[in-house]
Amino acid sequence: MTDLSREGATALDAADPLASLRDAFVVDDPELIYLDGNSLGRLPKASADRIAQVVRDEWGADLIRSWKHWVDLPFRAGDLMGSALLGAAAGQVVVSDSTTVNLYKLAAAALDARPDRNVIITDDDNFPTDRYVLEGLAAQRGIELRLVRTDIDEGLDPDVLRDAVDDNTALVSLSHVAYRSGALLDMAAVNEIVHGAGALVLWDLCHSAGSVPVRLDATGADLAVGCTYKYLNGGPGSPAFLYVREELQTLLRQPIWGWFGQRNQFAMGPAYDPAPEIGRFLAGTPAVLGIAAVEEGVRLLAEAGIGRLRAKGQELTGYMIELTNAWLPGLDLATPPDAARRGSHVSLRHPDAWRFTQALIEAKVIPDYRTPDRLRLGPAPINTSFTDVWDGLDRLRRIVADRTYERFSSEPSRVT
Amino acid sequence: MTDLSREGATALDAADPLASLRDAFVVDDPELIYLDGNSLGRLPKASADRIAQVVRDEWGADLIRSWKHWVDLPFRAGDLMGSALLGAAAGQVVVSDSTTVNLYKLAAAALDARPDRNVIITDDDNFPTDRYVLEGLAAQRGIELRLVRTDIDEGLDPDVLRDAVDDNTALVSLSHVAYRSGALLDMAAVNEIVHGAGALVLWDLCHSAGSVPVRLDATGADLAVGCTYKYLNGGPGSPAFLYVREELQTLLRQPIWGWFGQRNQFAMGPAYDPAPEIGRFLAGTPAVLGIAAVEEGVRLLAEAGIGRLRAKGQELTGYMIELTNAWLPGLDLATPPDAARRGSHVSLRHPDAWRFTQALIEAKVIPDYRTPDRLRLGPAPINTSFTDVWDGLDRLRRIVADRTYERFSSEPSRVT
Repeated sequence: MTDLSREGATALDAADPLASLRDAFVVDDPELIYLDGNSLGRLPKASADRIAQVVRDEWGADLIRSWKHWVDLPFRAGDLMGSALLGAAAGQVVVSDSTTVNLYKLAAAALDARPDRNVIITDDDNFPTDRYVLEGLAAQRGIELRLVRTDIDEGLDPDVLRDAVDDNTALVSLSHVAYRSGALLDMAAVNEIVHGAGALVLWDLCHSAGSVPVRLDATGADLAVGCTYKYLNGGPGSPAFLYVREELQTLLRQPIWGWFGQRNQFAMGPAYDPAPEIGRFLAGTPAVLGIAAVEEGVRLLAEAGIGRLRAKGQELTGYMIELTNAWLPGLDLATPPDAARRGSHVSLRHPDAWRFTQALIEAKVIPDYRTPDRLRLGPAPINTSFTDVWDGLDRLRRIVADRTYERFSSEPSRVT
Repeated sequence: MTDLSREGATALDAADPLASLRDAFVVDDPELIYLDGNSLGRLPKASADRIAQVVRDEWGADLIRSWKHWVDLPFRAGDLMGSALLGAAAGQVVVSDSTTVNLYKLAAAALDARPDRNVIITDDDNFPTDRYVLEGLAAQRGIELRLVRTDIDEGLDPDVLRDAVDDNTALVSLSHVAYRSGALLDMAAVNEIVHGAGALVLWDLCHSAGSVPVRLDATGADLAVGCTYKYLNGGPGSPAFLYVREELQTLLRQPIWGWFGQRNQFAMGPAYDPAPEIGRFLAGTPAVLGIAAVEEGVRLLAEAGIGRLRAKGQELTGYMIELTNAWLPGLDLATPPDAARRGSHVSLRHPDAWRFTQALIEAKVIPDYRTPDRLRLGPAPINTSFTDVWDGLDRLRRIVADRTYERFSSEPSRVT
C-alpha cells in the first residue's frame, strides 16, 4: 500500500534515481506544477545555451561557413535518437519537417510500394493529423481509408486489427501510444499481423518516443514518424523525425523530391536522383535551429536512459491513479490501469473536465484537456517529481471540493 | 563616370540612406566582407534577442500557455511580409514548412485544379529543388514536365514561354530572379502569357523577396513560395512562405491534410474539413522559433522599405560590375547588364571560379560558387556597403594578379 501523505511523495522523490535531472531544466516558478510535458516539454538549460550558441557563433559570426556543422545535423540527431530511444541502428532515422509532412511522405511511399492494394487502415481514434493525412492520400488515389474501431479508454485490440487486414491492405498506420487515453499498443504483435497480410506498417511515435522504449528494429517495424516537442523537449514546433527500416530505403521513394533528398546535392544535376539511403527521405533545407535544440533534448533523455524513464513513467502514472482513486472518486480513469499497457500520461473522464482544466491553470497546475470530457495529465518522467503529482492532484481535489471550477465556462475555446 | 577609388566607395556610403541599418545586424568581424547574403542573410540583433525571448520567456517560463502567442504567428509574419515586400494584401501569405514542401503543396493543388491538362512547364535552369519537385509530381501523375530553354546568363525570354504554353498547360512554375544569373523575370508579362493559356502560375521568390519589389496582387499572380533565410535574414533553415491569391483559396486544396490546415482545429473532428482561407495551406505544427526570427528579419526590411532596398541593390550590383570591368577583364559578366533586368546578385564566369571562391574565403571575403564556373556575389542591400564591394573586389584582383588562387583545388567539394 502506497503512503498517500505528502511525506510519502517526498520519500518517493528521495528514492528517484532521475531526481537530479530536474536541475537540467529551466524551472522558473517552483509553484507551477507542469503536467503537460506530453504536449510541450520543458526547456533544457543546455538547449537554451545551444540555441544561443548556434545563433551567435554559427549564424552570426561564421555565417554560411557554418554549413559544415549543419549538413549532418538531421542525421546526427536522428542517429542519437535512434540508438538511445527508438531501438534503431544508425542510418535509419532523420530529423526533418513536421510530423504531418513526414507522415505524408512515408505513407505515400508505402502506398507506391503496394500499387495493387487499395486499402489504408488506421483506427478511428487516431490523432487527427494522422487521420487527415491518410484521408487525403486515400482521396487522391481513389482508395479506401478503413477506420478500425478502437476503445477510446483501453486502446486498440490487436484482434480487431487482425480481422480488418487482408490482401488488399497496403498500409496500416497507428499510434504507438494513443494521444487521448495513453494506451500503448504491442508493436511486435501489430507488426506481425500487418506483415502477415503483406502490408507495410507506419507508426506514429509522438506519445511514446522518450517515454516508452521503442524497439523499431527488433520488432520489424517498417516506418515511423514522431514529434520532438513532447517528451523529447525540442521546443515549440521543433522538427519531427522519421524512420525507414534499412532494407526498405532503396525500395521506397517519397513524393516530395527536394534538393536535400538528392544524391550529390550540390552538383545540382538536371534530374532527381535520390540519395541512396535515409537521406532520400529529406526534402528541403533543414531547420537548423530546431534540430540543434532537438539534439540537446535527446541527449538529456539518453543520459537518463530510456529504461529508467519508462520505470519512472509507470510509477508516476500509477501514483497518479492511486491518488485519483483515493481523492477524486467522481473522476473515472480513461487510461489502461495496467502500467504495462499505457504510456506516460493519464486521462481522467468527467463531464466538467474543461472547467477543471481552467481552474487548475488558475491554481498553477498545467494539465491538458482533450475532447469531449478528458482531463489529460502527462508527468514527463525526466523532470516531474512525485511531489508535483501529489501537489497537482491535491489542488484538484480542493477545486472539486470547493466547487471553484463552477466559475468557468463549460464551452471549450482554447488552443493548445 | 563613377569614381572607382576607395574614396569613391566611401562617398557612396556617406550618401546611402540605408547605411545606418548595418548597425541593426551582428557584424563580429569588421574585416570580413560578406557577399553571400543571398544564400544566408546576416543575423539581425533583434532576431537574436527575439529568439532568446521566445526560448526563455515563452517556452521556458510560460510553456504550453504560450500557444496564445504562437497560433497566429504564421499569419502575422506572412501578412507583414505580404504588405511590406510582396505586394500582397492581408490573408494571402503564411510562413510554413520549407520552400520545397510549399512548392509541392501549391503545385499539386494547381494540378488538381486543372485535371484535364497534362503539362507542367518550368525552365531548364530553374533551381534544382523546383525542377525536382515538379519532376516528381509529373512522374506521379503521368504527365509531362516540359523544360523551356533559358539563357543561363540573360534569363528566360518570355517569347520562348509564349511558344511553349498551350491549352494542355496546367501549371507554369518559374523563379522570379534566377538563382545562378540573377536575371529578373517580368512577372506581369509572364502572368499574362500563362493566364492567356488558361494555366496557373507558381512563382519561386527565393531570390527576389526582400531585394526586388514583388507585385503579386497587382500582376495577378496565382501562387508563390519563397525562402526566408536569404534576403529576409530569417536564419539557417528558417521556415519558408507561400502565397495563394485570395479568390483561389477556396478553389484549391493542397495534398498534405494536416491538423493545422483544419477548420476549427482543436475540435479534432472526424474528417478533414479545410480552413476556409489561407490557413488551409498549412499542414503540421508551425516552427515557432523559426517564424519568430522571420518576423524580426522582415520587420527590418519593412523599415528599410523595399523601394530603397531595390534602388540600393541596383547601385551595389552596378558598382560591382563597373569595378569588375575595370579591374578583372578575365571575368565575364553572367548576369544581365541592365539593372532593371537583374535582382541583387551578380555572377561572374571564369574557368577558375571555384579556386577564386576558395582564395576569397581565405582572404575573408565570402562569395558563393555555382556550377560549373560561376562566382556569385550577393551584396544584400540592407547591410552591405559600397566599401564592402570595393574591398571584396580589390582582394579578388590581388588574388588574380598574384595567382594565389592556384594553390587551391579546382575540384568543387563544398557544401553551401
